Formats: sequence, C-alpha cells, structure tokens
Amino acid sequence: MKVRLNRRYHFSASHRLHNPILSADDNRSTFGKCNNPHGHGHNYTVELMLSGDVDPVTGMICNLGDLDPFIGREIVERFDRSDLNSDEWFHNTIPTTEALATRIFDHVSQHFELAKLERVRVEETENNAFEITR
Amino acid sequence: MKVRLNRRYHFSASHRLHNPILSADDNRSTFGKCNNPHGHGHNYTVELMLSGDVDPVTGMICNLGDLDPFIGREIVERFDRSDLNSDEWFHNTIPTTEALATRIFDHVSQHFELAKLERVRVEETENNAFEITR
Amino acid sequence: MKVRLNRRYHFSASHRLHNPILSADDNRSTFGKCNNPHGHGHNYTVELMLSGDVDPVTGMICNLGDLDPFIGREIVERFDRSDLNSDEWFHNTIPTTEALATRIFDHVSQHFELAKLERVRVEETENNAFEITR
Amino acid sequence: MKVRLNRRYHFSASHRLHNPILSADDNRSTFGKCNNPHGHGHNYTVELMLSGDVDPVTGMICNLGDLDPFIGREIVERFDRSDLNSDEWFHNTIPTTEALATRIFDHVSQHFELAKLERVRVEETENNAFEITR
Amino acid sequence: MKVRLNRRYHFSASHRLHNPILSADDNRSTFGKCNNPHGHGHNYTVELMLSGDVDPVTGMICNLGDLDPFIGREIVERFDRSDLNSDEWFHNTIPTTEALATRIFDHVSQHFELAKLERVRVEETENNAFEITR
Amino acid sequence: MKVRLNRRYHFSASHRLHNPILSADDNRSTFGKCNNPHGHGHNYTVELMLSGDVDPVTGMICNLGDLDPFIGREIVERFDRSDLNSDEWFHNTIPTTEALATRIFDHVSQHFELAKLERVRVEETENNAFEITR
Repeated sequence: MKVRLNRRYHFSASHRLHNPILSADDNRSTFGKCNNPHGHGHNYTVELMLSGDVDPVTGMICNLGDLDPFIGREIVERFDRSDLNSDEWFHNTIPTTEALATRIFDHVSQHFELAKLERVRVEETENNAFEITR
Repeated sequence: MKVRLNRRYHFSASHRLHNPILSADDNRSTFGKCNNPHGHGHNYTVELMLSGDVDPVTGMICNLGDLDPFIGREIVERFDRSDLNSDEWFHNTIPTTEALATRIFDHVSQHFELAKLERVRVEETENNAFEITR
Repeated sequence: MKVRLNRRYHFSASHRLHNPILSADDNRSTFGKCNNPHGHGHNYTVELMLSGDVDPVTGMICNLGDLDPFIGREIVERFDRSDLNSDEWFHNTIPTTEALATRIFDHVSQHFELAKLERVRVEETENNAFEITR
Repeated sequence: MKVRLNRRYHFSASHRLHNPILSADDNRSTFGKCNNPHGHGHNYTVELMLSGDVDPVTGMICNLGDLDPFIGREIVERFDRSDLNSDEWFHNTIPTTEALATRIFDHVSQHFELAKLERVRVEETENNAFEITR
Repeated sequence: MKVRLNRRYHFSASHRLHNPILSADDNRSTFGKCNNPHGHGHNYTVELMLSGDVDPVTGMICNLGDLDPFIGREIVERFDRSDLNSDEWFHNTIPTTEALATRIFDHVSQHFELAKLERVRVEETENNAFEITR
Repeated sequence: MKVRLNRRYHFSASHRLHNPILSADDNRSTFGKCNNPHGHGHNYTVELMLSGDVDPVTGMICNLGDLDPFIGREIVERFDRSDLNSDEWFHNTIPTTEALATRIFDHVSQHFELAKLERVRVEETENNAFEITR
C-alpha cells in the first residue's frame, strides 16, 4: 500500500498577467481583467502531496516538525503579503498560477529530501486550481 | 512535468431516481427517498480537470476566457434551475450523478478542443461526489 | 452574559417559484429561471439559534439529545429528498426560502419548548441565505 | 417577525496599507508585511444583509433580479481584478478592509432603495472579516 | 456607523462530558457518547467579534499585530493539542463548549483592552457552535 | 471510461502520539505537542473512493443504501466520540492518521465487497490529510 500526506499552506499575494512581447491590445485580449495595470490579488492555498514509507518508530511518513518550518521559510514567508511580479522567480516569467505551481514543485522537490514530492496544487480562488505532477 | 487545471462550475437542479422497468416497490427499495414521486434537488458542483502544454506566450494551459463561455453555455445554462429528468440527455437514462458526470465527460471531451479533458467530478452534496476518467 | 447555541441541519429538496395569480409572462419576468416548469432544487442548510440558561448539572443550555430527534423528525424527515411545492405548508404559499424559513421558525418556536428559538437561518446556496428573528 | 436576506458576492483585488503621514519605519511597525512596497491581495467576499417586508405576490423581500445587477455593476465590476489603492474611493483613505466595508455600506445604502441595508460584511481571508452596521 | 472585526483562531483538543455528582447511568443518559470514559476531541474554532472606533492614522479598529499574539499566547497555546478536562479552568466545571466559550469571553474581555469584546463564538464541529454576548 | 464514487463520513475522536520504546524526551522531540500526556482530538473526515461498473438497472456503481450502514457500523460508530489509543486496532500501533487510514483501508477492502475500494483519505484538520491507495 502507498501512503501519502497532503498538507495545505496559505498566503496572500498580488500579481499581474502581462507579457511585454505583446501589444497592449493583445495583452488585454489575452489576459482580460487580469492585465489591469495595477494588478490584483488572491488568497493562495498551496497543497503539497508527499509519499514515503511509514517510519515504524514514529508511525509517520514525514514529520510535520520538519516540513512546516521548511515550507514556512521557503514559500510562505517568501510570498505572503507580497507581489509575485516583483519576485526573482518571475522576472522573466508571467506569474500565472501554472508558473507559480511549477516553481514551487521544482523548489520543494530539489530542496526537501525527507519525503518524495508527488504533487503541488495551488488554489487561486475557490473555483480555480492548478496541479503539477512529474 | 505535467500541468493540470481544475475549474469548478455550479448549478442547482432537481432529479428523481426511478426506473420504469421496476415495480413501485422495487423502485422504492432500490432508490429509497430519492424515488419520492415529485423529485428533489441539489446544488451541483462540476469540476473539470484539463491538461495540456503551457503556452510560452500566455503562461497558461487553457485560457479561461475560452473555457468559461463554453461550459457556461453548454452545461451551466443547460442545467441551472432545471429538472434533469426533463432533459433529453436523460430521456432513456436514470439521472443519477454517475450518469450526469458521464454525459458531461462525453460532451466536453468531444466538443472542447483547446485542452485535454482528463476528469469530470460532480459533487451532489458536500459528502457525495462522482468522478469520470478515461 | 447570554449563551446561544447554533445548530445546523441539512436536507435536499426541490421547489418551483410560481404564482398562479400572475400570467405566464409575469411569472417568468418575476422569478426568472426559478419559474422553469419542472422545478429545480438545492441542498438546504437550516441553522437554528437557541438561547437559554446554562443548566448547572449538565453545563448545557439545551441537550442535543432532545433537539436533534425533534428537528430530525419535524423538519429533516419532512423535507429531505422532497418537493417543497407538494408539502401542505406550501399549498397556498410560494415556497421561496423566505417562506420556508418563516414556517420553520413558527413550527419550531411553537413546538420545541426546552430552549428559546431566537433565529432560523436557511441557506439555499453558498451565497444565498435567509434569516428570521422575532 | 423580521425577515432578512444575506447575499454574498466575490472579487479579487490587491491593496497596500501605507499612511503617507507616517515615516517608513512607523509604516512598517504599524502595518507589518501589509506595508510591503508592491502590495499584496485577497479574494474578498462581500455579504450584504437586507431586510424588508415579504411581498405577498412574489414571496420575496427583494428580487435578486434587481439586487444582483446593481451590486455586480457598482461593486464587483468596480473592484474585481483591481488595485484598491488606485480607486478614487481610497485616494485619501488607507484601503483597510474596515474602510472598504464602510464605503460599500455607504454606497449601497444610498443608492439601492428596494430593501433596507442592515449590514455589510467583508471577508478578507477565511479568518478575518469586518462588519458595518448603522 | 458601527465597525466590528471578526477574527478566527483554531486549536485541537479533547474533552469528556461527565458530572461527578451524577451516577454512571445518569451521566450516560445525559451526555450519551460524549461521556465515553477516555474522552474524544474536536478541531475547535474560536471567533472573536470586537468593536471600536476606527483609528484615523491606521484605518483599523484594532491592530492584529496586538490581538494575534495575545490570543495566541492566552488561548491557542493554552489549549492546542491539550485535554480540556485537565485545564485548571475546568477543574470544577464540565468542559462543555458553552463553558469553554464563557471562560474565553471572561478572560479576553478582562485582559484585552485595545478594543471591546462583543461576542465569542466557539465552533465544536461544522454543525455545532456556541456564542456568548454580554 | 472509469466511474468512481467519493463518499465522506465524519467522526470526532481523541488520540495521543507516544511510542513506549522511546524516552520521554525523545517522545517530546518527535511528537511535539501531540505527545501531551492527556491527549487531544480532532473532527476526522473519512473519504472513501470506490470504483465499479455502473449497474444498468440502477444507474449506480454502488448503492449508498448498502455502503452507508456498513461504514456507519464498522467505522463511524466504532470511533465517534472515542479515544483512538483505547481501540484494539491501536494497542500496539501509534494512532497516527497514517495508521488510522491504513487500518480503515484494510478493513473496508476486506469486508465490503459491492464495489472496489481504491482510496481512503482521512482528514485530521482542514490542512492535514492522509491517503492510502494500493
């Protein structure tokens, strides 16, 4: 049997969807209101799915005492009450939620080694979510 | 890496579970209160999962400016404030949520071509949901 | 200090908004899609707010062992998987959620005597709720 | 008996908490991360509570066919995917959620006359909400 | 106009409903499964409603930078991952949620002075909540 | 196409994370507050995902009239308002949510034969969930 942990984190941030290689009209027709010049924002939820063997001593696949400080420092503190467009991750990338989820997947899978990251899901609104798997 | 979009839509509708080939007693024992003669209803949530390549110009796998009008016209307007049993999709089919999800999967996968439909999930109540995958 | 209990119950039902004294056109312009001929439905949530003194022996203002069977029998079983228009409460009343909440307030305040009913709130959808107070 | 309608609307916007009469240090110590220079954002929910007599012809205290277009035009379209600091309501006011709720209360109570506005509640996050009553 | 802040906090705890002056049978008939000898638990949500004047310099009625550390220290750290029956607040009191909400109301209104506490609401489950007002 | 049912059940229970082979200090550093001596608790949600062929007579893959009594008796009544550590399933096992989900998966897949159990998901809090698949 396979055991997976899903853990959710929250932050509030702003972004603007705009591609400098497109004209103003094309930006507007492509991104609609999400291209508004001063940006807008969301309460983002990030859900990580991790898998691993259950440690017979702890009964856990991953101690939240290890995971929470890592994600708190690397993701929540980085983005909470921030503007995504100003973050270096998005200097050459439009901060769509597809891109945000992809960067989080890359970063966590490269730097957190105590369990295997299987999926990142980022919810932008209650009705809009993006998932990355390998 | 694989990127997926989950997008949720909502409508309110009624249905009655009844199979005309069964006796009244068998309908009652099979469907319980869901066989009540005048029907009942739900606030349905439809979640579509779509996959595709991220367009390097837009940063998106599928523009919601394309998906929302399609689903609004083909699914939400068709069913919101309606009776499922009266819809032609269910003239010869009991409108269980299994059947509703299956018909939505078929219809969207045949007619929406801008991303690949991977899953339809229909939530009938907070505790009851059905999913269709290929 | 005043202590109040809020208790939520759930049922799924259908209704149709239609006033026989109005023309078909007036019904349509007044009730919109909610006038569709075969009705539609919702997952209704009923929240009761009750107040009373805290019993020093039990520490409670009202034992849920008393309240739950009463509401289960009088409200949930009456309406779950039913059509509101067919219920005798609505033979001469349009089953708007205003009317449903009002009838529940009347019925519970008249027949449940172990705490004082202060408010009935009926949620028709996540975004639409009606409250009755005295 | 008193009947009230609660109706919820949603928009996504950004804001920055900053008072130009304070020093940079005082802004930082007063507003914390909410003073970050490029702003941040939220999925805001606005819940209006309205009261009125139930119309005996419609069974309603206020037709959502009247309320929804008014709030859609005056509030949702004004703020969805926008930056609150750039809105003229906040040219001389810090766009705290207290201020946003107050301005919505004023605007709706002055311009919507088909029911009496009793309360505006604005939810900034799942754990943070502000209410205005008279 | 009156402005109120609602702020929600979360902790997970266990309790057992049992009154030592009652017989084992009376405890069982009064408290049902909540009298089970080894207790059970909940994810509790505490929502505080506070009112006050909006400070013209900050635009706030109460700085969350003041409220959050106070409630974090006095309520969340006190009760999170604890057993209510073992807390000194409940040495002579059955830890019903009525009692928990009352003690929180007393404690916060006596010790937090930067805004006026108007209501404490404690949610024991999604369907069960208790409110204290003066 | 593959059709799956997701069905959610709820119970409230307490647990304590403690391994008798570890010292008191090691228990504390491993389990943190979850090692508190008198335990704590949660509102647990159990979501089962089942698959099967759609019965052409009923339109269902599994009748909830069969599933609900089984899970009600075998899982909800067993654990609701109980202490997990006192249950015989956990006499030699730390009742982490990983272990709880695993035991539920084993028990349901061995004893419920009317559809195929594909996944058990147990939510311990809104932000913390564990899933078992084969």
